[in-house]
Amino acid sequence: MNPTAAIIIIGNEILSGRTQDININYIARHLAIAGIKLKEARVIPDDPKVIIHTVNEIRAAVDYVFTTGGIGPTHDDITSDCIAEAFGVPNQIHPETFKLLEDYIGKENFNEARQRMAHLPLGATPIANPVSVAPGYVIGNVYVMAGVPQIMQAMLDNIIPTLRHGNPIVSKTWYAYHASEGKVAADLNDIQNQFPQTDIGSYPFYKNEKQNGVALVAKGQDQQAVEQAAKAVYELLIRMGYQPQEGEPL
Amino acid sequence: MNPTAAIIIIGNEILSGRTQDININYIARHLAIAGIKLKEARVIPDDPKVIIHTVNEIRAAVDYVFTTGGIGPTHDDITSDCIAEAFGVPNQIHPETFKLLEDYIGKENFNEARQRMAHLPLGATPIANPVSVAPGYVIGNVYVMAGVPQIMQAMLDNIIPTLRHGNPIVSKTWYAYHASEGKVAADLNDIQNQFPQTDIGSYPFYKNEKQNGVALVAKGQDQQAVEQAAKAVYELLIRMGYQPQEGEPL
Repeated sequence: MNPTAAIIIIGNEILSGRTQDININYIARHLAIAGIKLKEARVIPDDPKVIIHTVNEIRAAVDYVFTTGGIGPTHDDITSDCIAEAFGVPNQIHPETFKLLEDYIGKENFNEARQRMAHLPLGATPIANPVSVAPGYVIGNVYVMAGVPQIMQAMLDNIIPTLRHGNPIVSKTWYAYHASEGKVAADLNDIQNQFPQTDIGSYPFYKNEKQNGVALVAKGQDQQAVEQAAKAVYELLIRMGYQPQEGEPL
Repeated sequence: MNPTAAIIIIGNEILSGRTQDININYIARHLAIAGIKLKEARVIPDDPKVIIHTVNEIRAAVDYVFTTGGIGPTHDDITSDCIAEAFGVPNQIHPETFKLLEDYIGKENFNEARQRMAHLPLGATPIANPVSVAPGYVIGNVYVMAGVPQIMQAMLDNIIPTLRHGNPIVSKTWYAYHASEGKVAADLNDIQNQFPQTDIGSYPFYKNEKQNGVALVAKGQDQQAVEQAAKAVYELLIRMGYQPQEGEPL
């Protein structure tokens, strides 16, 4: 069985619409390559009760939990306090991280706010941050990362090799402009039934009246079955009079 | 009290990393303008048990639930069956919708797959789809919309005027290149304490070594308090030697 994962995006700025999240997609793509099944992603507010409850609910349900956001020096960075409370441990100075940040920032500028970033829940192991030094960390099966995409990405790149990998999910996509889901649906269902170990997905796209159509994706762990299902999808599109193109549309 | 809302994004394609979701952000921005507080967004797979459980959990917790995805004609479009089961009603032909689609598609092409889009959970009211006709619908406090962004947006535009609106959330943002969160954090905390009815958010941004800094957002229902808090934020940035600019960075 492939390992499972969930994402918790912590941030009022996503829920208010201020910020378009791009962290879910980056994490999702890298988990898929590692053969780790992403079962859920949640966006939750900067609310201690909600954060603590969500972390405890989700860490019991999957192999790996990834959080982003709320580990900076300002008053609205409350993730570490909440993670500590979720695990029932103190959020306290982590001496190595303290030294690392003090050396980087300079003793005279390493004020109380910045020292918050040197506090980790007891038992956490830091995750290196090559962009701006202040680390993320892992405690239990929870990986706590920054919200700024460039920093989160660098942290995740450090995390991925340490995880148990599963069988990679391979996929093959054919799309066709002006194809109609309703026209291919019955035959597509037959293909799904013919290849039960492969997930057949149908994704209409619509950019404008001229640039629209359907992308059909065959996906699974069995490369040969995916190839065969994709061939059947291709032939279906040809049979219906469309011009299949390989890969993703637009 | 402002009404509350939650979003459920139904779609394997988001969790596999195939598709970058942009529906959460669109819905979030339009809810904010309507003074409706978005409390949570979840991305879940095309799994009937998960969909049914999530819909029932969330519709009990907020005033309005918005789902996207899974209402097309193909075998992987299972949202309506699940919504019906969540509400304990049949998913059956909705005569008006049947007629609408039959007229649009043409009797000879209105096959079994396409007729799936004319099935609504009993008691649902259709939501018009000016892009591709097949409607979304509302049942109880659950608004079921398409996953294709252009269609979802058109449906949401029809929904928003029918909702109970709250006091709009106003916000004002100052940002400064090269500003450091750690340098402003203590004073920013003071500003937050001085304006408890206003949310003060600090959002570092990092595009590259030269284009980085912090955006400081004052947000709330009381316009005057927001303006005053934003003025204090501006003065803080000046005091620290930064060059504040109004609005969002990058």
